[in-house]
Amino acid sequence: MASMSTLFTQTSTPLPSLRKPFTTHFTPVLKVRTHAKNRARYGVKAGLIEPDGGKLVELFVDKSRKDLKTREAVSLPKVKLTKIDVQWVHVLSEGWASPLRGFMKQHEFLQTLHFNSLRLGDGSVVNMSVPIVLSIDDLTKQRIGDSTKVALVDSDDRTVAILSETDSKNMGTTAPGLPYVEEVITNSGNWLIGGELEVIEPVKYNDGLDRFRLSPAELRDEFAKRNADAVFAFQLRNPVHNGHALLMTDTRKRLLEMGYKNPILLLHPLGGYTKADDVPLNWRMRQHEKVLEDGVLDPETTVVSIFPSPMHYAGPTEVQWHAKARINAGANFYIVGRDPAGMSHPVEKRDLYDADHGKKVLSMAPGLERLNILPFRVAAYDKTQGKMAFFDPSRPDDFLFISGTKMRTLAKSKENPPDGFMCPGGWKVLVEYYDSLTPAGNGKVPEPVPA
Amino acid sequence: MASMSTLFTQTSTPLPSLRKPFTTHFTPVLKVRTHAKNRARYGVKAGLIEPDGGKLVELFVDKSRKDLKTREAVSLPKVKLTKIDVQWVHVLSEGWASPLRGFMKQHEFLQTLHFNSLRLGDGSVVNMSVPIVLSIDDLTKQRIGDSTKVALVDSDDRTVAILSETDSKNMGTTAPGLPYVEEVITNSGNWLIGGELEVIEPVKYNDGLDRFRLSPAELRDEFAKRNADAVFAFQLRNPVHNGHALLMTDTRKRLLEMGYKNPILLLHPLGGYTKADDVPLNWRMRQHEKVLEDGVLDPETTVVSIFPSPMHYAGPTEVQWHAKARINAGANFYIVGRDPAGMSHPVEKRDLYDADHGKKVLSMAPGLERLNILPFRVAAYDKTQGKMAFFDPSRPDDFLFISGTKMRTLAKSKENPPDGFMCPGGWKVLVEYYDSLTPAGNGKVPEPVPA
Repeated sequence: MASMSTLFTQTSTPLPSLRKPFTTHFTPVLKVRTHAKNRARYGVKAGLIEPDGGKLVELFVDKSRKDLKTREAVSLPKVKLTKIDVQWVHVLSEGWASPLRGFMKQHEFLQTLHFNSLRLGDGSVVNMSVPIVLSIDDLTKQRIGDSTKVALVDSDDRTVAILSETDSKNMGTTAPGLPYVEEVITNSGNWLIGGELEVIEPVKYNDGLDRFRLSPAELRDEFAKRNADAVFAFQLRNPVHNGHALLMTDTRKRLLEMGYKNPILLLHPLGGYTKADDVPLNWRMRQHEKVLEDGVLDPETTVVSIFPSPMHYAGPTEVQWHAKARINAGANFYIVGRDPAGMSHPVEKRDLYDADHGKKVLSMAPGLERLNILPFRVAAYDKTQGKMAFFDPSRPDDFLFISGTKMRTLAKSKENPPDGFMCPGGWKVLVEYYDSLTPAGNGKVPEPVPA
Repeated sequence: MASMSTLFTQTSTPLPSLRKPFTTHFTPVLKVRTHAKNRARYGVKAGLIEPDGGKLVELFVDKSRKDLKTREAVSLPKVKLTKIDVQWVHVLSEGWASPLRGFMKQHEFLQTLHFNSLRLGDGSVVNMSVPIVLSIDDLTKQRIGDSTKVALVDSDDRTVAILSETDSKNMGTTAPGLPYVEEVITNSGNWLIGGELEVIEPVKYNDGLDRFRLSPAELRDEFAKRNADAVFAFQLRNPVHNGHALLMTDTRKRLLEMGYKNPILLLHPLGGYTKADDVPLNWRMRQHEKVLEDGVLDPETTVVSIFPSPMHYAGPTEVQWHAKARINAGANFYIVGRDPAGMSHPVEKRDLYDADHGKKVLSMAPGLERLNILPFRVAAYDKTQGKMAFFDPSRPDDFLFISGTKMRTLAKSKENPPDGFMCPGGWKVLVEYYDSLTPAGNGKVPEPVPA
């Protein structure tokens, strides 16, 4: 896990806009944690979709019991969390995976692997497509022995949470070459430990971006405050170009036409682990900031927030998780693009997943029946208009497709894309990012490392 | 597929008992195909579980339209079926996979892979865990062109069926080393073609065992004739020893205690493709015959029939298929053992699947809620009683576990197992089978080949 050790610490990359307060159209909602007693209402708030399982799960220890729980943790066997484990504690603690109340136990893990869903006590089914599991090695398992509780500690040995009614079982392993496999599974122990979480310290990253990490409860509050009668979520882990913006603007228009009075966009960049050649979160947030500053998206009807989940790059399997988690945050519409949560095949020269399977699987996934899936319309650069527009198959030669690879190549060589592809402020951030990467001795631009 | 070419043709292995009529306690129900107009009642027959989707699917062309369909097939593009494809046509044609009406189209394939289940038009869910697909190569795809129908022909170019509303899509591939992958997937074309089947010629193997291949409709008739008020299915692809028999007898006893008046056992050996070192079907059938002749199982309450499906060796995924197909044949109880549909890891020295996952996954599988799952009780040879008995953990030293490997080793070396392990007639068949394998030049007994 050596390569992970700096994943969320500040790098030497200059981040000017993060050193001063954002002067942006973002929605820096005051990050005040609402209390458990106020939470019951989230399940029934008018206009917002009900969380999975009917009630939003939050796993924080009540303030009055924090000292008690901290003392209890001292006496328990310890399990050290990796950075990615901490991200999953974050995800679980805020209820993104509601109704899951902790790392998966065996029956949840098996249902996730086989059925991409969990059957609840009342016979209803919720979607759950990615395993959220905690692995331990043989030595740790031996140290835990028969204890039914363990203390989860971070890399600085600070207690994060207590895990109860633990259940540890042998896990399988999987094929090499995939980022999450290389990063997490290959390095993990032979056992998975699951059970209910009591989170003593809410997870913070102290990277200047914590105020953008709104929990599902906080997002629901924000949507209610804005009187949203529809919330449409846009998951992304890439810079926003005008094609994306067109799609989001157009979606709002379509929702208005459908009779909604105030559809709100949740622009929701993924903030957990990403592979080395994705643009790091802090740079992406600066880029998104410019997109709002430049007026490409309307700040009045847009909430920008960070989704704390790590990426599995599991394509059609993972897109279900991305959608399901947004239900818990109050979204009832989900925009799905080409090849969601996909990547290139690690060995062969092709996409790892069929680019159309994601949206198809999503539309058929158990437990997501309540969510309205909005497939991406294909946008491309219309040379006749000099801007991004929906592709018109009757005049294909008028359109230019600018792939992610093409975009990165242009930014790396400090070239400009065609006018209208991306707002100039946003493009500048991208160029700065690639410029910040020190060229290697061989003159080649190295693969970026996560900030 | 060269290695497949002899899979279902008669070998030179002497099969004396198959050359004369069985004088057995088997149930050689007259194999008369019931007509479609009589089939509606199978869904509502008192005492038998309803087939998946409410109605048993049968895909045979009505006799009056057979000539018409045969002529139509002549004009259609041809797709040549492998032996295993033919087995799947057999499975589909008789409704084992109800409500599936043909080789899977893309939306069915994706749901199977991701959710092990299919959502029907009315929102209900049926289990479907293994892909039942037909692959074609680039050339065949090109030849089919825009045709919405193709003729499926066997290795002798006889038309088996017409496949309609075809839909061909790129398929994925998977890891080497697994039997079904090596046998089927590695050799398959780049495309899958799916659609509705009209089966002109019911599949026959002419191996002397066709009369034991009862369709779900025929089994339902048989159970009704016997006034079954419960049907418990036992899937197997191995010789039956007295531990199995004890389990089956004990299950019947338990069902009687539960208040059922006439529980019937469906002893249901798998008859499709199996890997080379499994005991071939014809030998297994002879062994099962002896088990009934020797009175180990009661012929009055036992129906022996062949399940036509090929094996995927997909463990917890496949056991769902084995269970689901038996619902369609009228079984409402399913006995599940240790490591169902499992095998040794092709590379590592361990089981491919966790031996407990099968029964756990089965008990949680979507669409199987109506089926009563009966987990295997562990039987072992009780040295104090000189017979197979349920393992008593309070006196572990009294028990001898005889693994499949141990059993095969004994039979190969013509040694006898402890008295009471298997009925003598059954054991003799096993010894004869291994004896029939010509020793290789190096003096070692070669791996058996399928008969």
